[in-house]
Amino acid sequence: MERKIPGHPATPRPVHARLAGLWLALLALPALAQEQDFLSSWNDGAAKARIVSFVESVTDPTGADYLPPAERIAVFDNDGTRWCEQPMYFQLAFIIDRVRALAPQHPEWQAQEPFRSVLAGDMAGVMASGEHGLLEMVAATHAGVTSEEFAALVADWLATARHPRFERPYTELVFTPMLELLAYLRANGFRTFIVSGGGIEFVRVFSERVYGIPPEQVVGSSIRTRHELRDGKPVIVRLPEIDFIDDKAGKPVGIQKFIGRRPVLAVGNSDGDFEMLEYTTSGPGPRLGLIVRHDDAAREYAYDRESPVGRLDRALDAAPRQGWGVVSIKSDWRVVYPDAGR
Amino acid sequence: MERKIPGHPATPRPVHARLAGLWLALLALPALAQEQDFLSSWNDGAAKARIVSFVESVTDPTGADYLPPAERIAVFDNDGTRWCEQPMYFQLAFIIDRVRALAPQHPEWQAQEPFRSVLAGDMAGVMASGEHGLLEMVAATHAGVTSEEFAALVADWLATARHPRFERPYTELVFTPMLELLAYLRANGFRTFIVSGGGIEFVRVFSERVYGIPPEQVVGSSIRTRHELRDGKPVIVRLPEIDFIDDKAGKPVGIQKFIGRRPVLAVGNSDGDFEMLEYTTSGPGPRLGLIVRHDDAAREYAYDRESPVGRLDRALDAAPRQGWGVVSIKSDWRVVYPDAGR
Repeated sequence: MERKIPGHPATPRPVHARLAGLWLALLALPALAQEQDFLSSWNDGAAKARIVSFVESVTDPTGADYLPPAERIAVFDNDGTRWCEQPMYFQLAFIIDRVRALAPQHPEWQAQEPFRSVLAGDMAGVMASGEHGLLEMVAATHAGVTSEEFAALVADWLATARHPRFERPYTELVFTPMLELLAYLRANGFRTFIVSGGGIEFVRVFSERVYGIPPEQVVGSSIRTRHELRDGKPVIVRLPEIDFIDDKAGKPVGIQKFIGRRPVLAVGNSDGDFEMLEYTTSGPGPRLGLIVRHDDAAREYAYDRESPVGRLDRALDAAPRQGWGVVSIKSDWRVVYPDAGR
Repeated sequence: MERKIPGHPATPRPVHARLAGLWLALLALPALAQEQDFLSSWNDGAAKARIVSFVESVTDPTGADYLPPAERIAVFDNDGTRWCEQPMYFQLAFIIDRVRALAPQHPEWQAQEPFRSVLAGDMAGVMASGEHGLLEMVAATHAGVTSEEFAALVADWLATARHPRFERPYTELVFTPMLELLAYLRANGFRTFIVSGGGIEFVRVFSERVYGIPPEQVVGSSIRTRHELRDGKPVIVRLPEIDFIDDKAGKPVGIQKFIGRRPVLAVGNSDGDFEMLEYTTSGPGPRLGLIVRHDDAAREYAYDRESPVGRLDRALDAAPRQGWGVVSIKSDWRVVYPDAGR
């Protein structure tokens, strides 16, 4: 409140008035979490406009679409949505490197598929072993160690492995616009979850450092575990049996199991995310579903309906009918990867 | 910007000085989360001193025991630790009321245990049906509905059911000192989880309202679920099969599965919490384990080694050796339940 004091043009405003102003500014902070501060790697276009309009509508306490912070749950797929998934899922690259590292202890693998193909560098042979072959490799490389030992193996691998095309650590191949979207959502009171078909304990190793997402906000596929005493100390031992597949219809199941509330925002990139998108956007009230479309062969990769990795076919056809936004990497993203000083 | 105005002794301190003071006060807020503001229902004694000393040591950035906020994970059992569990687990009271409500649709229950005993009010008969009988009742009362329908059933029950001795809603029989401890921990940067042998979807219905704990910070026992379309809308349907028992050695498994990090503070009250306490306190660095001892028949209940509900025997014997603190309801708690205006 301004108070005019005749003859004293320079007199400062009274203390209480200035404090009130400061408090108002502090109270207004959430409203300052505007998209221009966060989404600088997004080109102006329909996708960015959808996101901003959704966030502004659910955070406007005077609007019809207002959601209390408790209900602001956002779920994101990981492979192909938050980071690159080509030329193969990064976890598969980890599995292959682990098979190679463990091979000297397993001479029988020289004659046993899919290990023989992995060791011969025959990716077609690996792929031909199908789901059964993949589960064999998961059992061989993900089980038999404690959770803490497994996390250390993944951390060591992430520190040294390099992507074959970009020659960078895999954790640098996260999508900058997605990091910005996460920060923008959190600044607007959202809780942000990963809901990945990948292994929960694999993703948790880097989720906090790379995405700012703590382990308890990661949902993923898992193998069974058992509590055991080793040298008198309790540990969790990983067993060679599938516990839960967090893909397709498994994603809504995983969401209810781990998060316990229907999300209001879901982002995916493949048919494996169809049910998660549908589950999210079919709830009552304001909802947003987004699909990242890989259409940029120059800066990233271009693939959709025919790709064995990250196949996007049914969900792309359904997008207009379901009201899901499609994010084009080529036209919606000004930047794809963090610069990392290069 | 300071403006000196000669002849005006009442000129307030310069703006920047006052703003700096305000900012310092705001920055200092975490350090103001002292126990006297939070633990007023705790008597001064060894238990309170242990808690305060632990929290102060792990939050002192200059101390050897300092833990970054990411590692400040606290896990609490529910039945008997956060709320009363006598004369029977409250979820069992829900099950019994559901069996009664569903009985008209199940004439065969009149001749089928454990339903016959439930309907006859024969609790000894119910107990005699053992674990098999309990699972039969869980299947009959917890499955066949969607997750959202189940949550509504629990909410309706909580709104009307009354505890037989205290004649209050079950959600008013939470322990005030535990609510204070939760608030004290959160004010000191901890994330607080429930790790309950009870049903995860049962506890989630009231955890946010009663404890301020959102659904994703609840770990518990579960039945299997399935994604299904009903009238074209995706729902999660609850199936009559056990998925996971979050009790005894299941608690560390559930902690790793849902939280993904070894906690630094665990609170329980029975032998079902032994492995959770051991898993927590056997990690490196500062750790705190606490056992609530029910020794106050006047204000709550008194039971331990011989009790069929909340039996405390092995964990009590282990407490001194393991360094776990024992909290006596009788002597450590000035107040047991919220007053609720009575």
